[in-house]
Amino acid sequence: MHSETIIFSVDLLGVFVFALSGGLAAVRLRLDMFGVIVISFMPAIGGGTLRDLLLDVPVFWLKCEIYLFVSITAGLAAFFAPHFWSRMRALVWIDAVGLSLFCVIGASKAHDLGFGPIVVVAMGVITATAGGLIRDVICNERPMLLQKDIYATAAILGASVYWLCIDFVGAPLIATFTGAAVALLIRAIGITFKLSLPYPQRNSDTRLRD
Amino acid sequence: MHSETIIFSVDLLGVFVFALSGGLAAVRLRLDMFGVIVISFMPAIGGGTLRDLLLDVPVFWLKCEIYLFVSITAGLAAFFAPHFWSRMRALVWIDAVGLSLFCVIGASKAHDLGFGPIVVVAMGVITATAGGLIRDVICNERPMLLQKDIYATAAILGASVYWLCIDFVGAPLIATFTGAAVALLIRAIGITFKLSLPYPQRNSDTRLRD
Amino acid sequence: MHSETIIFSVDLLGVFVFALSGGLAAVRLRLDMFGVIVISFMPAIGGGTLRDLLLDVPVFWLKCEIYLFVSITAGLAAFFAPHFWSRMRALVWIDAVGLSLFCVIGASKAHDLGFGPIVVVAMGVITATAGGLIRDVICNERPMLLQKDIYATAAILGASVYWLCIDFVGAPLIATFTGAAVALLIRAIGITFKLSLPYPQRNSDTRLRD
Repeated sequence: MHSETIIFSVDLLGVFVFALSGGLAAVRLRLDMFGVIVISFMPAIGGGTLRDLLLDVPVFWLKCEIYLFVSITAGLAAFFAPHFWSRMRALVWIDAVGLSLFCVIGASKAHDLGFGPIVVVAMGVITATAGGLIRDVICNERPMLLQKDIYATAAILGASVYWLCIDFVGAPLIATFTGAAVALLIRAIGITFKLSLPYPQRNSDTRLRD
Repeated sequence: MHSETIIFSVDLLGVFVFALSGGLAAVRLRLDMFGVIVISFMPAIGGGTLRDLLLDVPVFWLKCEIYLFVSITAGLAAFFAPHFWSRMRALVWIDAVGLSLFCVIGASKAHDLGFGPIVVVAMGVITATAGGLIRDVICNERPMLLQKDIYATAAILGASVYWLCIDFVGAPLIATFTGAAVALLIRAIGITFKLSLPYPQRNSDTRLRD
Repeated sequence: MHSETIIFSVDLLGVFVFALSGGLAAVRLRLDMFGVIVISFMPAIGGGTLRDLLLDVPVFWLKCEIYLFVSITAGLAAFFAPHFWSRMRALVWIDAVGLSLFCVIGASKAHDLGFGPIVVVAMGVITATAGGLIRDVICNERPMLLQKDIYATAAILGASVYWLCIDFVGAPLIATFTGAAVALLIRAIGITFKLSLPYPQRNSDTRLRD
């Protein structure tokens, strides 16, 4: 019970920070107040929404309006005080905590429904990253997700470790915290050393269709 | 019974006008016939489709193919006579009627399923505006929704008034017409005086992540 | 039983080739390994995913992880050997086979659920083309689907012929192969003669809203 409260609190904190990151991106594009709030929703609840649609379970924020409320609050906070928030170096780290928790929450939801490892990992990655991808697509920006892959790699490894723990050890709580810790560690290494995955061989023309 | 027929007729008219607006946008991009029809679908049925997916109810046009038929007709009309339609000043006002009705239809669908105020308003806004957002994203244009917010504001207030009426007065018909009237009034003021919401403070760098 | 095995094999081959086309597009954009794999998914499983969400049936790759596995393999193949694949002229033709089969699979899924002709054709087209549209939107490219419509026309006619066959002849196997053959034939004509549908009249200003 106590650990559920902790996870729920960190989950809401993750939603707040993800919504803030979306709101600040919208402020950079000079959108108006409504636009800032809409874009805030994308990273905050977009990934979990897509996950729930794919898994055919009720969308999480329909049953629990506090997620929408937190997201709107973060959007307004970004709108009225963009400089205050963007100066906070701590946000990158809270964002990393949100990523870690989101990927484990997504993975656990798929695992509880009885899915196998690929789907479990895919749902972890979707929960943690799809919302940010949708935000970038709507803002007409080159998706960050597809360029700074250590972000996605953290989600993949966190969800994988979660799956390994829960399938071979069997303790949900240990799996949750181990998975989130691994994701956070990878992301922390990425932030600190600015690592990235290999890029494809340079080449200018690889069109398939004509 | 009679009022349901009126709502259904205005609903179809709204679908036609929204599809026309999508088709004319596609003609501006010089898409071919198929492209024009596809883009027509987005504002006409995209918002309601997303609403139904989120609420986990059957997608409305699966049960009632006339929506697809009306949308295809409007797409062809835009394709073969773009100048005829774009000269019609009346279209802006029919579009406003469509917006007003769509937001109330979306809100009532969520209310009938027992959801609270934030979800009811969100579904009203999604029904009225998400399709246009998808159209702009596919057309690779800066989303109009995020710039001309009086449009979204009309949907928010219309859906809110609907919710207030139905929750405190309890008469679905009165709620439907009052909500739609408020949305139409706000949108009419927006069209007439070209109003918009406040923009965020000017600032050039508010990046969160690096 | 034997024919189902053939269809399943060609289906997987279609997924592989569609994923390869997505992966090569991602390599052209110089995305990293994760980005290439994500973009590979879009054309390969995006259309079928959207179809299943709209029809409210379980998403096909949740029950059968081999689709994800094949798609990831194709993404890695595109990442590590883009020149090898893009030199293969045969790919355009395998892609055409994939298109033909995807449109018939989508149409048959809608038909089996009891839907009428417009929905059946729409699901065939969505299955065959929506994933490529999503890929182009995420890659921030002008959607190919909306420009090379003979592609979509092949899917429309293939799905229509499927529907005619199954509704008036009643034999699923004959309908499947006739529908796929028609789609393949149209696409082959399109590839060989580089045909396209009519474009709208030239005109520079057809804005509806202001």
